[in-house]
Amino acid sequence: MNQIGVGLLGFGTVGSGVFHALRSQEDVIFRRTGTSLKVRTVLVQNHEKKRIPDVRSILTTDFSDVLKTDIQVVVEAMGGVEPALTYVKQAMEMGLHIVTANKELVAKHGVELERTARRKGVQFLCEASVGGGIPVLGTLLHFLKSNRIYRISGILNGTTNYILSRMSDEGDSFEQVLEEARRQGYAEADPTADIDGFDAAYKLSILGRIAFEADVPVSNIRREGIRDVTALELNLARRLGYTIKLLAVGEQYGENGPITLGVEPTLLSITHPLASVHGIYNAIHLEGDVVQDLTLVGQGAGDLPTSSAILEDLCNLFVLSPPKRSLSREPLLLPEEQRGGVRFVCLEPSQTSEDLNANELRQRLQSIGLPVEDTVVSPEGGAAFIIHRWHPSFPSVLVAELGWDISRMTIRPVHGAKRVY
Amino acid sequence: MNQIGVGLLGFGTVGSGVFHALRSQEDVIFRRTGTSLKVRTVLVQNHEKKRIPDVRSILTTDFSDVLKTDIQVVVEAMGGVEPALTYVKQAMEMGLHIVTANKELVAKHGVELERTARRKGVQFLCEASVGGGIPVLGTLLHFLKSNRIYRISGILNGTTNYILSRMSDEGDSFEQVLEEARRQGYAEADPTADIDGFDAAYKLSILGRIAFEADVPVSNIRREGIRDVTALELNLARRLGYTIKLLAVGEQYGENGPITLGVEPTLLSITHPLASVHGIYNAIHLEGDVVQDLTLVGQGAGDLPTSSAILEDLCNLFVLSPPKRSLSREPLLLPEEQRGGVRFVCLEPSQTSEDLNANELRQRLQSIGLPVEDTVVSPEGGAAFIIHRWHPSFPSVLVAELGWDISRMTIRPVHGAKRVY
Repeated sequence: MNQIGVGLLGFGTVGSGVFHALRSQEDVIFRRTGTSLKVRTVLVQNHEKKRIPDVRSILTTDFSDVLKTDIQVVVEAMGGVEPALTYVKQAMEMGLHIVTANKELVAKHGVELERTARRKGVQFLCEASVGGGIPVLGTLLHFLKSNRIYRISGILNGTTNYILSRMSDEGDSFEQVLEEARRQGYAEADPTADIDGFDAAYKLSILGRIAFEADVPVSNIRREGIRDVTALELNLARRLGYTIKLLAVGEQYGENGPITLGVEPTLLSITHPLASVHGIYNAIHLEGDVVQDLTLVGQGAGDLPTSSAILEDLCNLFVLSPPKRSLSREPLLLPEEQRGGVRFVCLEPSQTSEDLNANELRQRLQSIGLPVEDTVVSPEGGAAFIIHRWHPSFPSVLVAELGWDISRMTIRPVHGAKRVY
Repeated sequence: MNQIGVGLLGFGTVGSGVFHALRSQEDVIFRRTGTSLKVRTVLVQNHEKKRIPDVRSILTTDFSDVLKTDIQVVVEAMGGVEPALTYVKQAMEMGLHIVTANKELVAKHGVELERTARRKGVQFLCEASVGGGIPVLGTLLHFLKSNRIYRISGILNGTTNYILSRMSDEGDSFEQVLEEARRQGYAEADPTADIDGFDAAYKLSILGRIAFEADVPVSNIRREGIRDVTALELNLARRLGYTIKLLAVGEQYGENGPITLGVEPTLLSITHPLASVHGIYNAIHLEGDVVQDLTLVGQGAGDLPTSSAILEDLCNLFVLSPPKRSLSREPLLLPEEQRGGVRFVCLEPSQTSEDLNANELRQRLQSIGLPVEDTVVSPEGGAAFIIHRWHPSFPSVLVAELGWDISRMTIRPVHGAKRVY
């Protein structure tokens, strides 16, 4: 029997989930891999908390104790950059493999940590850092090797997806739903990382690195959260056949071509595979030149789904060899002013006269030369339309020609607007 | 450089797709795997057909020529059981690896072929046999090792999904849509394998073998096609919040417990992750004890998606080691009369009096002790209802107590009727 010793850093939701899952799955893992994974030490911040007896005996608050134990792999489930970064580096320098769920660490220091891993001949696996239980990194690395991936779009944050789903279903405001989500435990007391899009940007950075073999710093990812999404625009978007999601999109224009990475509220045709992903679910839509398109949907957070990704990484530590991927390429980022595509423009009630109808609105827009497709006017005031072949000069055209107030217009990208058949 | 010689059996949609994709992806594959995959020989039935020059020079109509070539792997893209079975066995006996897209071969002879592969120390990979480009077998084998899978549900046949999607969207009859699908090339001239559920049953058999480590012969899979699905029931189902799909479902009741495998038209709540899978798309919903649930969606057929699965198998031949799975377990099948769950019952117009309303219908059913949930009556005649806690005696109760004609009732299972939030 092949015994592998595991050192566990952190015993919160994820850490304790991994501890219990390694026990409940022990026989399955042994039967399928011939390996027995044993947690030999657990690093915690507070030694005094109540714990189950089996955990109490292997607790420590001193990281150097972990390195002294007979372990081959460290599971990092602490979150945040420090002290996780220091501990992970030290562990690798001692020849230990790393499995981590820490998206901020992987997004900000993944390239450096991956280099250390290669130099030391150890593995650095981080499936749990993106999409909870969804094996999307593994799919990209091992099952899309022969594909050139040209677009990734994902719903990568469960909290914001829950809030937008509820706002859309019930017509409530952002503040109302956020308050409710906090009470129900779907949102953190300080929800900034989620609702301002940082969490999704970390995950997109990790996905982009693997899919495009390109190192884009998180600070270069376009990022807009969901704070200013209104019930009015959700309603008008729906009447035009769209839903609004906080979408993370990475695109590459041609092999080794320029790249864009962005996280922002985005319209999706209700027939798009990601449009029906509700509530706390995460999903990633991958487009490659041979496979065409592939969508993976699953639970993006929670102790069990995240533990699944960590357990699978542990099972694969000695089995799957990491394919050759470049770590150094710093890609050209497509300048913002060259982003074309389709846009949704929503006008607040004060911008629309009372007796405006959708036809008149379309005629006015077409008379000033804008390529307008659908228009809709709300009986309660407010209007919206879709513009194809977007050009960054259009907002100033609207201001100059129609006298509209730019601060009372919301402009959102529209993604993949074609019917899936 | 590591050169691997490939022998290609068949040059139809899939075979020629693989040939061209191996060229267009040559540099990507080499960069990521260090390997160059070269097609050295192509087995065809008809030497006289027009071909591009590069193919013409390596064609043969004699399988023994293939075995004489310097190859390490045979890609079988012929379809059907014979002569594919004989060729694949011969190739493995000579120490060649196999990559196949042939679902009928894998479903009917997979266990025997897998045993030969193990005995000869070669690999037998068949990702392309289920779900086209969707890497579902790889996901089950490599990324759900630590999970006990207890349920698999899938939309595994694009033709029937296209037909049901169109019937539902447009209210057309099965015959009308089938005729149109034939004209557009979405259905074969002889569509039996698709619309009677054989194709989906082959794929379910392969999925069940991996997920439950259980060998269930295709003949033991419950199978009902879509020929008798009516526009009326699609309409009534939708009014109750459901869609109807040809669903392949495998369930295991407890570890090493009894199994059911079946393919039949099934109601799905419109909020179920599979309900929004339209047209030619395939999808598989996997439920495991740690990961919770995972849905994979992609193009289930076509030269490119299928080639993607074959190319990925080729790239992984020398990289991924197959995990240990039992090949011999013959599971207990759950007897039909023990299947409980939820059912949808649809009554033809002749069964319902003109002035019946939904409330009266529910009262009549409840008065004879049936656990009825939702009822709906069509203004054009016809009615439907949902029964929870189904018992196989219920149809005879309806006949005896209400005098209904069993031949004018349609009874369908309802799958996963809970709201996903």
